[in-house]
Amino acid sequence: MESNMHTEKPVVLGVDVGATKILVGYVESDGIVPLSRRYAIDRSSRVSTIASIETAITDFLEIPWSMYPPLAIGVGLPGLIDATTGTWAQATNLPITSPVNLAAQLKENFKLPVALDNDVHAATLAELHLGAGRKTRDFIYLNVGTGISTGIVFNGQLVRGANNCAGEFGHTSVDMNGVACECGGHGCLEPIASGGGILAQVRALLPEYPTSCLGKLFKLDQLTASLVFYAANNGDLLGIEVSERAVRTLGFALINLIILLNPSLIICGGGVMADGWMIRQLDNYIAAHALPFVYHSLQGIVLSELKADQVGLLGASILAWKSIGKT
Amino acid sequence: MESNMHTEKPVVLGVDVGATKILVGYVESDGIVPLSRRYAIDRSSRVSTIASIETAITDFLEIPWSMYPPLAIGVGLPGLIDATTGTWAQATNLPITSPVNLAAQLKENFKLPVALDNDVHAATLAELHLGAGRKTRDFIYLNVGTGISTGIVFNGQLVRGANNCAGEFGHTSVDMNGVACECGGHGCLEPIASGGGILAQVRALLPEYPTSCLGKLFKLDQLTASLVFYAANNGDLLGIEVSERAVRTLGFALINLIILLNPSLIICGGGVMADGWMIRQLDNYIAAHALPFVYHSLQGIVLSELKADQVGLLGASILAWKSIGKT
Repeated sequence: MESNMHTEKPVVLGVDVGATKILVGYVESDGIVPLSRRYAIDRSSRVSTIASIETAITDFLEIPWSMYPPLAIGVGLPGLIDATTGTWAQATNLPITSPVNLAAQLKENFKLPVALDNDVHAATLAELHLGAGRKTRDFIYLNVGTGISTGIVFNGQLVRGANNCAGEFGHTSVDMNGVACECGGHGCLEPIASGGGILAQVRALLPEYPTSCLGKLFKLDQLTASLVFYAANNGDLLGIEVSERAVRTLGFALINLIILLNPSLIICGGGVMADGWMIRQLDNYIAAHALPFVYHSLQGIVLSELKADQVGLLGASILAWKSIGKT
Repeated sequence: MESNMHTEKPVVLGVDVGATKILVGYVESDGIVPLSRRYAIDRSSRVSTIASIETAITDFLEIPWSMYPPLAIGVGLPGLIDATTGTWAQATNLPITSPVNLAAQLKENFKLPVALDNDVHAATLAELHLGAGRKTRDFIYLNVGTGISTGIVFNGQLVRGANNCAGEFGHTSVDMNGVACECGGHGCLEPIASGGGILAQVRALLPEYPTSCLGKLFKLDQLTASLVFYAANNGDLLGIEVSERAVRTLGFALINLIILLNPSLIICGGGVMADGWMIRQLDNYIAAHALPFVYHSLQGIVLSELKADQVGLLGASILAWKSIGKT
């Protein structure tokens, strides 16, 4: 009986578009995902990218489903999104070089309300409504994966900024005379402390550390940030150099962020944060270097309670629920 | 007739407490100040400081006033304020070393609703409701005077943070290996780019620039940041060194702020901004160094439209209007 009641809850359709896959799923308002499926994305062109999203949704909706049909569609996407008009304006890791009104297109095709937003904004909304952010009105969602990005919540609201691109913490510069970043800036955080940056530094420094255990893993294409941290913990000098620089630099930038925004919580997500090592190091760094009143106003720097492979989908579902006034 | 209608508008009592004076005034909801008076502050002790505020209000209320009596009292104060409980928790430039529930005390004495807040938060609210911030929902108020502080407005709301101390931009570090700041941090913005910092650097560098015109002004105690900028514009090498460093450092930190928060407007206040020189330099710096999409999302970096000597009082009045649900 209870199980039956559960499966009869209304759902929305969440769509989490990443650089290499599309995750589509039904999501209940409490974040339960009764059905989801992963699809490939054909990123060879703008047209094929958009067609991949439409095909994935079409296929998913054809899966036999005896419960409520979805009430709305929410889509989280990488890049620059105009959430008000539902326009996907631009992306760097997918070939979206001119704007597409994806919301209008999906609405026309699937006859449902559609909401779009940036994937990190969507994940931040998932933390606010379903994750650790439920307990506080002022927090930072810090995602460190291939890149680095943040979502900022104040007064219980997502800070979008003038062009919906607030939260670009990865391109905070920590050194005005630092090395050039691919964004065009200098001394950005991302090439030093992101997963992509950590691996690139290991590769660049390998010739100086011929005995490092990381060399072999790198050549086998098996290296991850987590293995770099593991190597550092076990005394590997290359691992220590790269991971300590990442901690010091990210910690420094985080203290500036905490002083500026006075959040009560930092919720961490993304592959680099997943094993907890970086979070512990950052907590130590902040405790040692931040002014006491700053550190004490922060309740903690914690790992997301949401499943890493679902947070994007949950975020997309929040967009959908919001579009029909249900959140 | 119109004049008479005007003077019959309801007013609140604004109190702007600075390090050296207290400005008390009646303020109408549209920001008109029909009467104000400046009082000295006896900062010899915690008790004398608080007594100065109470005496100023008492004296002001005794000035003959035939219009509506004030509906509420709003007080802007330096330091750390708990705006919810009305507690003045701590200040550094006034001897408030232990918390005082000033709101409760003033309410008891004057039998009116009382609201307190930090002076920069109050000024930011003045910009939001009466100044250039009326035209936008996402802006930064950047005050550069003796120190540096910001107020952050998103979604039309002041960002207070967990402990009501969001906006401490002056202690953003621009160099983790930089010189020690009196806050306990290293490489902070304030000693480089604030008015106090600019004068301190001129003093420190005077021996290296014996022919600088700034030396005499400094000795006569007449030097201001504006005169340092004027000297720089006229080729004085000491003026150039100090002012260019201030521009470069503040510009660098501002670009990080703009990338992180994506504001549509930066509204500048404070003595260092008043002559417009620093604003023009910052605009040039940001145009030259920020990513194009970041610069283009910013509508401008502009001088406050509010009178510099009234913005604190206006901000205090907004606190008062808010306390009675009128804003």
